[in-house]
Amino acid sequence: MAVRTPLPGLVPILAVDRRSSQPLGRQLYEAYREAIVDGRIRAGQPLPSTRTLASELGVSRIVVVGAFEQLQAEGYVESRPGAGTFASRTLPEDALQTPEPPRPGPRRPRKVAKLPRLEGTHPEPWSEGFGPFRMSQPALDRFPFQTWGRLSARHAKNPKRALLAYGDPQGYPPLREALAGYLRISRGVRCTPEQIMVVSGSQQGLDLCARVLLEPGSEVWFEEPGYSGARNAFRLAGARLVPVPVDAEGLDVARGEALGPRARAAYVTPSHQYPLGMTLSAGRRLQLLDWAQRTGAWLLEDDYDSEYRYESQPIAALQGLDRAQRVIYLGTFSKVLYPALRLGYLVLPPELVEPFRRVRDATDIFPATFHQAVLTDFITEGHFARHLRRMKLLYRERRTALVAALQPLLSEGYQILGDQAGMHLVLALPRGKRDRQVAERAAQLGIRAMPLSETYLGRATRQGLVLGYGATPAPRMREAVERLAQAIQSPP
Amino acid sequence: MAVRTPLPGLVPILAVDRRSSQPLGRQLYEAYREAIVDGRIRAGQPLPSTRTLASELGVSRIVVVGAFEQLQAEGYVESRPGAGTFASRTLPEDALQTPEPPRPGPRRPRKVAKLPRLEGTHPEPWSEGFGPFRMSQPALDRFPFQTWGRLSARHAKNPKRALLAYGDPQGYPPLREALAGYLRISRGVRCTPEQIMVVSGSQQGLDLCARVLLEPGSEVWFEEPGYSGARNAFRLAGARLVPVPVDAEGLDVARGEALGPRARAAYVTPSHQYPLGMTLSAGRRLQLLDWAQRTGAWLLEDDYDSEYRYESQPIAALQGLDRAQRVIYLGTFSKVLYPALRLGYLVLPPELVEPFRRVRDATDIFPATFHQAVLTDFITEGHFARHLRRMKLLYRERRTALVAALQPLLSEGYQILGDQAGMHLVLALPRGKRDRQVAERAAQLGIRAMPLSETYLGRATRQGLVLGYGATPAPRMREAVERLAQAIQSPP
Repeated sequence: MAVRTPLPGLVPILAVDRRSSQPLGRQLYEAYREAIVDGRIRAGQPLPSTRTLASELGVSRIVVVGAFEQLQAEGYVESRPGAGTFASRTLPEDALQTPEPPRPGPRRPRKVAKLPRLEGTHPEPWSEGFGPFRMSQPALDRFPFQTWGRLSARHAKNPKRALLAYGDPQGYPPLREALAGYLRISRGVRCTPEQIMVVSGSQQGLDLCARVLLEPGSEVWFEEPGYSGARNAFRLAGARLVPVPVDAEGLDVARGEALGPRARAAYVTPSHQYPLGMTLSAGRRLQLLDWAQRTGAWLLEDDYDSEYRYESQPIAALQGLDRAQRVIYLGTFSKVLYPALRLGYLVLPPELVEPFRRVRDATDIFPATFHQAVLTDFITEGHFARHLRRMKLLYRERRTALVAALQPLLSEGYQILGDQAGMHLVLALPRGKRDRQVAERAAQLGIRAMPLSETYLGRATRQGLVLGYGATPAPRMREAVERLAQAIQSPP
Repeated sequence: MAVRTPLPGLVPILAVDRRSSQPLGRQLYEAYREAIVDGRIRAGQPLPSTRTLASELGVSRIVVVGAFEQLQAEGYVESRPGAGTFASRTLPEDALQTPEPPRPGPRRPRKVAKLPRLEGTHPEPWSEGFGPFRMSQPALDRFPFQTWGRLSARHAKNPKRALLAYGDPQGYPPLREALAGYLRISRGVRCTPEQIMVVSGSQQGLDLCARVLLEPGSEVWFEEPGYSGARNAFRLAGARLVPVPVDAEGLDVARGEALGPRARAAYVTPSHQYPLGMTLSAGRRLQLLDWAQRTGAWLLEDDYDSEYRYESQPIAALQGLDRAQRVIYLGTFSKVLYPALRLGYLVLPPELVEPFRRVRDATDIFPATFHQAVLTDFITEGHFARHLRRMKLLYRERRTALVAALQPLLSEGYQILGDQAGMHLVLALPRGKRDRQVAERAAQLGIRAMPLSETYLGRATRQGLVLGYGATPAPRMREAVERLAQAIQSPP
């Protein structure tokens, strides 16, 4: 196999080329190893003496001795004092022959696990590139790189040993301290730093929840429509997904009780339902907490974008209303900072801290420390609050521009949903329009609009387009909507 | 709840203190919300008009309107035009009462998953602090921070959008390209970048292997003694662990076939057995590959520290001998760079790439990008090769100093094992000594020696101390060994 990208300074081990500048010792080693493995040199067959070989090849004997020592260290040859070197006898004869085809047997085990069907793991036309309306894209160009870079440099230059060694499975303690303060003040979450676990994005948080809480066959309520990433995490743990419809007040708790009375958990997005954007009403919140308390179920509150709320103050988290320690709160920095940071967090009821620590240790031990330390400074020095304020103004401006650009469509049976918060809204399509078709045509025009129907677990009862506006500047909104309208109106 | 760490700039949402500098509007909102949730204000009960309340409290009416709008947005109150504001009727009466104790039912579901017994998740005296001989600690003070910091600054200042947005579940493509080159040249691994998956340390690699390959009850061979982290990852997937003894040639394949003939996978450390340090012989390698090919089993080759080999060239990987695509190769940067980086990699047989991508997507989507980009530069600009060479000299010096310091013990029945490679060796204890007792006494003297018996899944057939020497300078070795000897010789 030829080496395509020679890397400076690395000692080659296998690049076999007799005309190359390879050290002869290495080539010798290679040649003998291959010959022994191929069976060209049989077990017990003597090798020439190092003296002979060196003289024959016209190289230093040291080179040959080195190659033979290597072969011996690896067990390909044996050296008998006074007798010389021999191809090893401990190589099993049959293993050296040309491999036979695998024998089919009656009890041949299945080779890989039977994986559940997972959604969205293949690229779709609306999840590629950086075109307008692509979901989950924050305004990366507005990220304060100067500040972030300065804080990064501070930690990169003179790192403390604790920042380099193995760390705590719950994450860097100063970050957990800062997060607890932020969550208490800004999100109405009641917790101590000891309840926080830093994770590699909220997806890892969901995966850990599924693994600690569920067993194969456990029922879990999911908002319908809802977030496929959460469904995937729970499917992987063998959960039975129970889709529970949402209405104007969010998750229909009574329907949930009818559909999955023995569910072990419910996954909800109370601040800004994903994808429809309504807020879980106070009544439903209390109903949900009551259900959880009565049945011992867990509530997974995914608060993925509640920092950005445009018409009122941020909605207090469900977690803060919970008196019975049933809520696991999930947050992420993918939206408020950037996705490739891979930082999120869980707020755990105290009784769950220990099992989560154990599973995390077996899963990936602990989260990378460097950016946890940078983020701690970013929060405690006030940059985070400043960034959130700036981004809220920016996204409000983008939201308003998008809503304005969509106005002409509203008289034709289109409807805007969930534009009070976050970084996306839904444009519900009038009867007869198929969202998947529209999204595919839009993608051909460079517009990335996700079909609402893709977010349903069951049959989609509504057709629409989920429009992310985080990464689309306000002045570009009108033109982007025009292209979208073109895709909507062109004949199928 | 008092706010312990006020964070600059964040808008408070719940800090309830009537004497605080909280905006009155916020306090109003809080007070009404609490009263409605507590049931002090009943559903349908009218609230005072905003005019009345404003005049009564002597505040601007705008403040009161703001608080009521917030209460309405969250569903705690309803506004009827011309009639005023009322506590919401949609709050279910029963949810508002004092919570009743959970009713015990006959089919009350279990609340969390039954987790397997996991090893080493509680801190042990030998896994705390930075004392001499602690395992898995590289020479962090010799890490080239200047260079690493310079490369980091380069990427932090002007990041490309692709470094911030969602990335590939297999990792950053330029890093995979660089890794494929490094592995081909230096480790004898045959692969393309498309077979590589970057993971958050080798523990995540093991976890992914377990989840893709196994089902509950699947048998897996483990070297005995062996690495508890790998055992934990496989236990979590419900594997039945089959301990297979190692001898001077490494894993005893024939014993494996007798003990677990239908095993779906085998976990091995061929270059430097963990913890005993022998090399899997060429004969055993071929036997193992033959078994895998015959039965369809997978071989997980954990090559955790093979870069550092002192008596001969690095041993070529098992993966490079595999003609049947049965080997999954795992590597990590925790030892050669630093643990808190959380970067490792898998080399997958082509048929496994797709299922690994799907599971990874559901697990944590993709690895953080920043340090992947820094590491790419570190490798392609030759710093990595230079660092490896320096570290190899350094660890050889430390190893030699440790072996020299241990000499006086060897005449008393002690034995040194596995000192040809890596960053640890084993000091086997003479009959009658209990390694756990010795390790606990050593910890009291600040020495972190891991008991060999802890690395056995079954009954330990050998007592010894696993001594990491990566972080202990050569001149300190004699004194550290003296303290260790003191712990060994003090009466139990």
